[in-house]
Amino acid sequence: MLELTRVYHFSAGHRLADPALSDEANEALYGACFRPHGHNYYLEVTVAGRPDPVTGMSVDLEQIDGAVRQRVLERVDHRTLEEVPALAGVVTTGEGLARAFWRLLAPAVPAGALRRVTVVETAKNRFQYEGEAA
Amino acid sequence: MLELTRVYHFSAGHRLADPALSDEANEALYGACFRPHGHNYYLEVTVAGRPDPVTGMSVDLEQIDGAVRQRVLERVDHRTLEEVPALAGVVTTGEGLARAFWRLLAPAVPAGALRRVTVVETAKNRFQYEGEAA
Amino acid sequence: MLELTRVYHFSAGHRLADPALSDEANEALYGACFRPHGHNYYLEVTVAGRPDPVTGMSVDLEQIDGAVRQRVLERVDHRTLEEVPALAGVVTTGEGLARAFWRLLAPAVPAGALRRVTVVETAKNRFQYEGEAA
Amino acid sequence: MLELTRVYHFSAGHRLADPALSDEANEALYGACFRPHGHNYYLEVTVAGRPDPVTGMSVDLEQIDGAVRQRVLERVDHRTLEEVPALAGVVTTGEGLARAFWRLLAPAVPAGALRRVTVVETAKNRFQYEGEAA
Amino acid sequence: MLELTRVYHFSAGHRLADPALSDEANEALYGACFRPHGHNYYLEVTVAGRPDPVTGMSVDLEQIDGAVRQRVLERVDHRTLEEVPALAGVVTTGEGLARAFWRLLAPAVPAGALRRVTVVETAKNRFQYEGEAA
Amino acid sequence: MLELTRVYHFSAGHRLADPALSDEANEALYGACFRPHGHNYYLEVTVAGRPDPVTGMSVDLEQIDGAVRQRVLERVDHRTLEEVPALAGVVTTGEGLARAFWRLLAPAVPAGALRRVTVVETAKNRFQYEGEAA
Repeated sequence: MLELTRVYHFSAGHRLADPALSDEANEALYGACFRPHGHNYYLEVTVAGRPDPVTGMSVDLEQIDGAVRQRVLERVDHRTLEEVPALAGVVTTGEGLARAFWRLLAPAVPAGALRRVTVVETAKNRFQYEGEAA
Repeated sequence: MLELTRVYHFSAGHRLADPALSDEANEALYGACFRPHGHNYYLEVTVAGRPDPVTGMSVDLEQIDGAVRQRVLERVDHRTLEEVPALAGVVTTGEGLARAFWRLLAPAVPAGALRRVTVVETAKNRFQYEGEAA
Repeated sequence: MLELTRVYHFSAGHRLADPALSDEANEALYGACFRPHGHNYYLEVTVAGRPDPVTGMSVDLEQIDGAVRQRVLERVDHRTLEEVPALAGVVTTGEGLARAFWRLLAPAVPAGALRRVTVVETAKNRFQYEGEAA
Repeated sequence: MLELTRVYHFSAGHRLADPALSDEANEALYGACFRPHGHNYYLEVTVAGRPDPVTGMSVDLEQIDGAVRQRVLERVDHRTLEEVPALAGVVTTGEGLARAFWRLLAPAVPAGALRRVTVVETAKNRFQYEGEAA
Repeated sequence: MLELTRVYHFSAGHRLADPALSDEANEALYGACFRPHGHNYYLEVTVAGRPDPVTGMSVDLEQIDGAVRQRVLERVDHRTLEEVPALAGVVTTGEGLARAFWRLLAPAVPAGALRRVTVVETAKNRFQYEGEAA
Repeated sequence: MLELTRVYHFSAGHRLADPALSDEANEALYGACFRPHGHNYYLEVTVAGRPDPVTGMSVDLEQIDGAVRQRVLERVDHRTLEEVPALAGVVTTGEGLARAFWRLLAPAVPAGALRRVTVVETAKNRFQYEGEAA
């Protein structure tokens, strides 16, 4: 009933390309996104909790921040997403990233706390994943 | 479980007025909004999907963008909302617009994909409609 | 199915401190937030409604604005949150504030209309409460 | 050397049209802006001052706010700009508005204090006037 | 001719009060700002430079960031501004802060490089100081 | 005295690297920016003009937009900046880009009209060039 959302930022290069396809087919499929480019991504992580009656805090923010930093930001910030080992096999669409980040984060936060992972790719595009439980 | 939100923009004039009421009654009901004025509207369209395992994409963005452009933006951008035929009979409150845009868009996107239509009228007001299925 | 969100703003000072703890323990628990500081808070109030077929409006905005102004803004704006009588006993974390504002607002809006109270503490932190019915 | 900028907001309808031209010529000249539409305008007013050594304030904010409210906002907010008497003869381009607002405001603030009037028409367009002294 | 602006953030409590005045006089002078409250401040630091033909960089960003962090942020973030020794004697209006931050920063950046210090107190208020040379 | 600013957007990949240096030296010099990454860039183009007494417009916006589109956006959007022929020899720091875009744009707008080119690399970094006349 109580949700807390933290907003993180990273800058990364990426391109959309299916290795099984020709360049022409990839360009037809992905348009300009087939060409290597990049974004300032915002990553929003939403966790649910129940405020502790004494501390007023519902989650351990240091734990959340630490998980996001170690499992996501340090791996993707100022990188090319296609070269990030933790994203091997992921098509780096916003959809793909949101789901991949969920899978990286869910094991590192309290069981059942993760509610939503939102990837904001540009001011016109955002992708939200409410995934399978950890 | 995976939602994608696209953000669109249009500028339009409008006023709130009930044709059955006198000017005085309309002003009492709608206040300053009874006078013709206008806004920079943001329209957020949220669709749900399941990422294709090969392409990583959950929806056909060109289809969504095309539907929004043809069915909404080209009809309302740089127009007076009360004069838009596709909005005939709609009171152009944020509520009315959100529901009207839903009805215009739902038939043009894959069945069941449309999740939410949000009309941002000003930085202090937004209206969200999660409507009847298409 | 139709939700309207209004965004309000106030500036307030606050600190996080458990009166039962020593200064050292509080600093260990709350870090920098144990020191008196302040924020520009945004308060987002979401109410649900059904557009009136004649007026196109789903809620009485003056009623909502009045409730927020009298029950929240006039009490907290340009104040120290720990000194606000209406927040007595509330740990002024974002979680605590979201729940406290819900409780202040729910009795003053139409029964069942209040859907969500969101406290935006900084651009990196927001807290959302979908509370018990009024 | 010290400049203070206040940001104000108003919503208005407008259209660009030269009364001496035919509809076709106006449409060729102004494009979509020939059709009645509207915007959420932001008006930024910049004044220069020297901080008072005792109060720390360089300008009388109530005077500035009052001047903007009475001379601009109350005349244009929730109006059609072409019907505002104080804007008679003004082509309501961003350029035209910035200059017109300067002329309305300059006599109402301390002599020489007004530095800049900026009209933000949309997130992609802003117009800044540093005009003749009051 | 080339200016670089870095944006920093801190949260602080403050109040406006002239110690020589009575509470009533202070409230008459400063209104609600006489009551202790707080803000999320943005501090924008603008430095001028000439891009190095080899590195493409016009300033040593680590030097700028280090100066802002040590001389400003570490002293004011999550503090009450009136209790910050480095601000002793400063009335903490936006004007006062902009000038005080300039004086703290100018000696720590290359001579003549500092062009402008802007304090953004709220979304509606910003204060810009282009001060005496270092 | 009248300035108009248009805001454009592009997404691009880039890295900072001096070809004359070793990888170690580049990493020491540019830090994380030595690694290929990317940004959502905003390009702000400011031109000066004098409003035409009849049209109210001070510049030919289609000319400005066309120049930016053809000379900058089509060359850099969804590209790797280091591979853009028009940027050959440019170190793609914000400083380098601002100056390069100025040089691309100045010949394509009315003589003397270009006042400022601003490259917004992230929400924390912007670079402004007021260059040599065209």
